[in-house]
Amino acid sequence: MIVVDKQQTSARLQGNLQEVWRLIERHHQFEDSSGSAPQEQAPELESVDHAQVFSELQLKLGQLHPADIAHILEALPLEDRLLVWDLVKADQDGDILLEVSDAVRETLIESMNPHELVAALEPLDTEELAELAPDLPKQVVSEVMGGLNEEERAQLQSALSYGEDKVGALMDFDQVKIRADVSCEVVLRYLRRFDELPLQTDKIFVIDDIGVLKGVLPIRKLLVSDPEAMVGEIMATEVVSFRPDEEAVEAALAFERYDLVTAPVVDAAGKLIGRLTVDEMVDVIREESDSDMLNLAGLKEEEDLFAPVMDSVKNRWAWLAINLCTAFVASRVIGVFESSIAQLVALAALMPIVAGIGGNSGNQTITMIVRSLAMGQMQLNQAWRLWRKELGVSIINGLVWGGVIGLVASLLYGSVSLGLVMLAAMTLNLMLAATMGVLIPCLMQKFGRDPALGSSVLITACTDSGGFFIFLGLATFFLL
Amino acid sequence: MIVVDKQQTSARLQGNLQEVWRLIERHHQFEDSSGSAPQEQAPELESVDHAQVFSELQLKLGQLHPADIAHILEALPLEDRLLVWDLVKADQDGDILLEVSDAVRETLIESMNPHELVAALEPLDTEELAELAPDLPKQVVSEVMGGLNEEERAQLQSALSYGEDKVGALMDFDQVKIRADVSCEVVLRYLRRFDELPLQTDKIFVIDDIGVLKGVLPIRKLLVSDPEAMVGEIMATEVVSFRPDEEAVEAALAFERYDLVTAPVVDAAGKLIGRLTVDEMVDVIREESDSDMLNLAGLKEEEDLFAPVMDSVKNRWAWLAINLCTAFVASRVIGVFESSIAQLVALAALMPIVAGIGGNSGNQTITMIVRSLAMGQMQLNQAWRLWRKELGVSIINGLVWGGVIGLVASLLYGSVSLGLVMLAAMTLNLMLAATMGVLIPCLMQKFGRDPALGSSVLITACTDSGGFFIFLGLATFFLL
Repeated sequence: MIVVDKQQTSARLQGNLQEVWRLIERHHQFEDSSGSAPQEQAPELESVDHAQVFSELQLKLGQLHPADIAHILEALPLEDRLLVWDLVKADQDGDILLEVSDAVRETLIESMNPHELVAALEPLDTEELAELAPDLPKQVVSEVMGGLNEEERAQLQSALSYGEDKVGALMDFDQVKIRADVSCEVVLRYLRRFDELPLQTDKIFVIDDIGVLKGVLPIRKLLVSDPEAMVGEIMATEVVSFRPDEEAVEAALAFERYDLVTAPVVDAAGKLIGRLTVDEMVDVIREESDSDMLNLAGLKEEEDLFAPVMDSVKNRWAWLAINLCTAFVASRVIGVFESSIAQLVALAALMPIVAGIGGNSGNQTITMIVRSLAMGQMQLNQAWRLWRKELGVSIINGLVWGGVIGLVASLLYGSVSLGLVMLAAMTLNLMLAATMGVLIPCLMQKFGRDPALGSSVLITACTDSGGFFIFLGLATFFLL
Repeated sequence: MIVVDKQQTSARLQGNLQEVWRLIERHHQFEDSSGSAPQEQAPELESVDHAQVFSELQLKLGQLHPADIAHILEALPLEDRLLVWDLVKADQDGDILLEVSDAVRETLIESMNPHELVAALEPLDTEELAELAPDLPKQVVSEVMGGLNEEERAQLQSALSYGEDKVGALMDFDQVKIRADVSCEVVLRYLRRFDELPLQTDKIFVIDDIGVLKGVLPIRKLLVSDPEAMVGEIMATEVVSFRPDEEAVEAALAFERYDLVTAPVVDAAGKLIGRLTVDEMVDVIREESDSDMLNLAGLKEEEDLFAPVMDSVKNRWAWLAINLCTAFVASRVIGVFESSIAQLVALAALMPIVAGIGGNSGNQTITMIVRSLAMGQMQLNQAWRLWRKELGVSIINGLVWGGVIGLVASLLYGSVSLGLVMLAAMTLNLMLAATMGVLIPCLMQKFGRDPALGSSVLITACTDSGGFFIFLGLATFFLL
């Protein structure tokens, strides 16, 4: 771990420690276990010696859930973050690394030496190791692998062989397995031999001699059954199961739809190879909606809120560059009509309205289509029907809002024909927006791309250039 | 239910039935229970009599999970949707109504008469009734209420008394309760008296004489414990619990963070009054991210994909109207500089670039801030620090991209000073975008509004009007 000189930083830290303290206090406290009242004030940091403050902080941190510490680390600027990271007990390091965002994880891993990293990874399960592996130095990964037994190594390699958006990368190997030809009594006795059942266990998987999944025994059914009853009689055979090469997003939708807590993962032969848990699926749902939001806004990936300026510049430049190109195209469209604008300068003032409303309306359409495709509510063969509907909406909006703004324009500039051109251009541009709003995501989907990616930039490019062209073209033809 | 004349519609339906059939086949089938092969073809609809097709469809639908039927209904145009709805077994109606989106639910409820509605609601729990109640005719609600016993009516009224985004509106009353002074053996015997444990049950709530929550007994702990052990010894006292007036979104974040499956809801005195389950929380997460996405795109609420054109127009007009106003303001800013544009028409072609890049960059900033505020990663007192960072990013981007486009502009129009004005305007507008991108959501949050709502429209309004003003102002001052 980076050596943080406590003497040197502590002066500047006095203010920030208050901040850390507040963050810690804000968290759901496990009130019974920490003997302290939840509203306890931070000690007066100026008057006490720093070693004491640090040890109090350390105590507080030790009482927190790793997810809470992860949250605090994400909310702290880099220097304070590393200081707190230094105070965290080493045995929590691995769990915290799992919980923090990718960007923050990078900063934490950078601050640790290989030896510390190996120690932090030691308590983790293979599927947790698989999650961290891509962010770790190669040397550390191979050292950790060396410490695993053969079964674990096979599990890790299997998990690493799937893309991180596949079921195979997210499944764990903690499934409890039984046979169908035993009684509930036997199952209960078998379970009592565990030190602890795996987290989230809501069902036990029933397999045959060669490991093929035959059904599941929900715990809530086991608990109310006659101890003499055989597993095979009471198990559920209607099982929602997944393959390791399925998309994680699809599995998350199924969890959402069927209210699942865990589900088995089976291979092509029906053999049980792992399980999915709802907590992983919740993360998938969160990440998916986050990435849609980031993509719509033109951010490449999640950003550490306190990243250095240059990191943020790097994360954002790609979409800005694309936007610059599309804006340049729109500008050249206007350039073609410069002589028209020179003759009737009102056109310059009115053209952004046509383009802007088109962009807004197009974004409404494309968002609806992207969402429906993602949720599986829309099939590509319905595109035609939806296009007609969107066209209907755009014609109504065009006539209404185009009429309003056309009226205002004709009053403002004293020209009825200018108002009529405005009305026509608005309607046509909204129709263009509706058409491209349906077409772009459907084409993306058809060619196997993510329909959300860049949809907002693309539709705006169409409605800007298109809007300028339609409005200035009509104006040149009819007014000049 | 609306009388669908099967003879009349069936001709048109031949094509659509194929579609319904395909949708059904696409769903995760409970393969063992339906004896049919999953790739079974739709019968040749032209050659067989319609009654037979309908009865086969009905059979298929009967084998599906209510959530799947809900999904199919959402993916069907209105007329087909009502036909399928007519085929669904009445005892599934209530569950399906719970699963469909608000917009689709409305169409289904409209098609049912009060008598059918009351029958459909009969099998539902009180918290499920509470979820549907706002969409139901008043008469139906009071009739259903009349059929409840006193306890259920109190539960329903309590659930209805909370806003639909509060914990109190989402909790159910299916908690299993025990005392701390009994042995695990007794608990197991007590559980066996249930016909079935409530869905999602992963823990049993431990209460005292007057109903105050003392701890929870996770089932996974109960199953591995010595039958002689007392509940009080093995129960967990570190319990994450919620109050009914807490925000559902906050509870969902806690479920996500602590990987919860269920959690107790307690009143101010610590008395257990209900429980939250992860499936409800997953819906909260999904709805929250959906509504952020819809708000960003300027849609008021989720839309039925196959809604009549006028319904869509109504859902979208509000944001279009706001956008029209902001676009009009931007247009008037340009209007002020009409004489400058008349003198140097190149300005008209270049000004949308300045405004457009500002809008894109501002959206990047505001999305990051909105997201960090929503996730609780950012406190308002960090706004100052983040503003400085965003300002740094915007200055770098302004100099780089402003330099590029300034160079292009000066080559294109043969004027170095025009290029310099472009560079300056771009940098200043990006700085404006960074400032407003931090300021707008922080002010929204400070005044208790949702920072996501309209953020995109507001930032674009600033960068459009601001960009035009800065660019045309600088050009007027330095070039003319």
